[in-house]
Amino acid sequence: MAELGFIGLGIMGAPMAGHLRAAGHRVHVWARRKSAAELEAAGFLPCSSARSVAERADCIVLMVSNTPDVESVLFATDGVAAGLSAGKLVIDMSSISPLATRQFAERIAARGADYLDAPVSGGEAGAKAATLTIMVGGKPEVFERARPLLALMGKTITLVGDVGAGQTAKVANQIIVGLTIEAVAEALLFASKAGVDPSRVRTALLGGYAASRILEVHGQRMISGDFAPGFRLELHQKDINLALEGARALRLSLPHTASCAQLMNAATALGWSGFDSSILAQVLETLSKHHISGDGTRAAHDPTP
Amino acid sequence: MAELGFIGLGIMGAPMAGHLRAAGHRVHVWARRKSAAELEAAGFLPCSSARSVAERADCIVLMVSNTPDVESVLFATDGVAAGLSAGKLVIDMSSISPLATRQFAERIAARGADYLDAPVSGGEAGAKAATLTIMVGGKPEVFERARPLLALMGKTITLVGDVGAGQTAKVANQIIVGLTIEAVAEALLFASKAGVDPSRVRTALLGGYAASRILEVHGQRMISGDFAPGFRLELHQKDINLALEGARALRLSLPHTASCAQLMNAATALGWSGFDSSILAQVLETLSKHHISGDGTRAAHDPTP
Repeated sequence: MAELGFIGLGIMGAPMAGHLRAAGHRVHVWARRKSAAELEAAGFLPCSSARSVAERADCIVLMVSNTPDVESVLFATDGVAAGLSAGKLVIDMSSISPLATRQFAERIAARGADYLDAPVSGGEAGAKAATLTIMVGGKPEVFERARPLLALMGKTITLVGDVGAGQTAKVANQIIVGLTIEAVAEALLFASKAGVDPSRVRTALLGGYAASRILEVHGQRMISGDFAPGFRLELHQKDINLALEGARALRLSLPHTASCAQLMNAATALGWSGFDSSILAQVLETLSKHHISGDGTRAAHDPTP
Repeated sequence: MAELGFIGLGIMGAPMAGHLRAAGHRVHVWARRKSAAELEAAGFLPCSSARSVAERADCIVLMVSNTPDVESVLFATDGVAAGLSAGKLVIDMSSISPLATRQFAERIAARGADYLDAPVSGGEAGAKAATLTIMVGGKPEVFERARPLLALMGKTITLVGDVGAGQTAKVANQIIVGLTIEAVAEALLFASKAGVDPSRVRTALLGGYAASRILEVHGQRMISGDFAPGFRLELHQKDINLALEGARALRLSLPHTASCAQLMNAATALGWSGFDSSILAQVLETLSKHHISGDGTRAAHDPTP
């Protein structure tokens, strides 16, 4: 039984922290949007600040929304850093900037504490089922210390490299997922407009080199026109923007990632940023005035999902 | 034992026709580049023209390079059409234009014969192992007649729709494969330039939503810098151009397919069209002056694969 901390009890974080608690650990939490009574009822130990969480726990897990949130939780007055002492461990499981991650890790190291970045893939379903893919950056010996805890939340857990490497892998993941969604949308739109049933095309293609989880899952969403998240486009957009910021800083040309960001901007302009990122298909449908599922169940050009 | 015809004994066609022969069928062939002695030695029955093949066989399979080749084999003087009679069946397994396919099928129907388009995915390895994915367009009853023959050459065999639907599905397949190759290249290039081992990123990502056969197979080619085909870029380029021709005719906007065609043009300009289409990664590497496998085994910017 360890003294753990968890900050960020959102859609992902709540079930993840729940798995830690269910394994018998004491989980100290700080959550601005939940009452102490609510947290206690869920089996957590509420604290009055992030600093207080860090004082009580030996290992503090973060699962918040973006780079500024991580910075604030760690380094604000009464933040995690103020409560750290030598030998403690911070694990940031949020999806944030790889470059900022390296700076955060250095500042945490200055307090004598260790740092891992461990962003995840798999969404709410993966968080609930403890089947997340976890991409880790940090020192191998620190990774080994954290592995039993990570194994309570995920299934495929890979040490990718030094601090920041987990975030870099997550960005690479989001590039592939975003661009593959776009690719599947172009392919199904082509087939549908040519008068061929996109559902049969999906089935035929799942047997060959075009096969992917995206064709299987997101392809089906496009065909049935069901764009409920899943993973919201606005969150995916954040990750694609991290890729483009990184590309600029690293002097890299990523033409399709850049174009994907523009199509995501269009989705936002059209009011669809809260839908699953497979809504990209509907941006393409709008450009060509044709629905992938041109079977009469949706209007010929109905911009509302 | 049936009387079959096969025209197009190239890298794909030769092993495919071999499977038909090995199953005990008599396979009449016409091949401009091979001698009668050579064909006989392989167990085929050489003919002096495509017309002669069609006169002797009840079912004639085509496996040639492109739309003009199919048109010529079918409709030139002494072409297949001239030798057809009612009840015979033409199966075009080449990858060609869906629009042209519908016209060809009509002209064949005027002779009282049936037509299926049945392009394949799976490459030389799939042709040799008889594990091709076959996407078929045509009438259901004609498909059922052909299915036992197709099953000698492929594993996943799907009737996608009417005549032309097989070619449409193949184009959709090639859109996804091309754009996914490009996506994997951008992701691995990002990781590598950020100082993270692309090989570990590939492994980590294969556990999640970014998983695909392309990440597995083509991702490995990019990491090891081994661009031997596989599937030659110049052939993939032909298919992507079919997608763009179709898009223009159908009034469709396919932004990433269009951009992929331009990157393929760049690969050709750089002299790489004979390599596997994962050579697209090297076009991106050239733009960013960085190799995905930046491990010292290749020069920092060596344009020769």
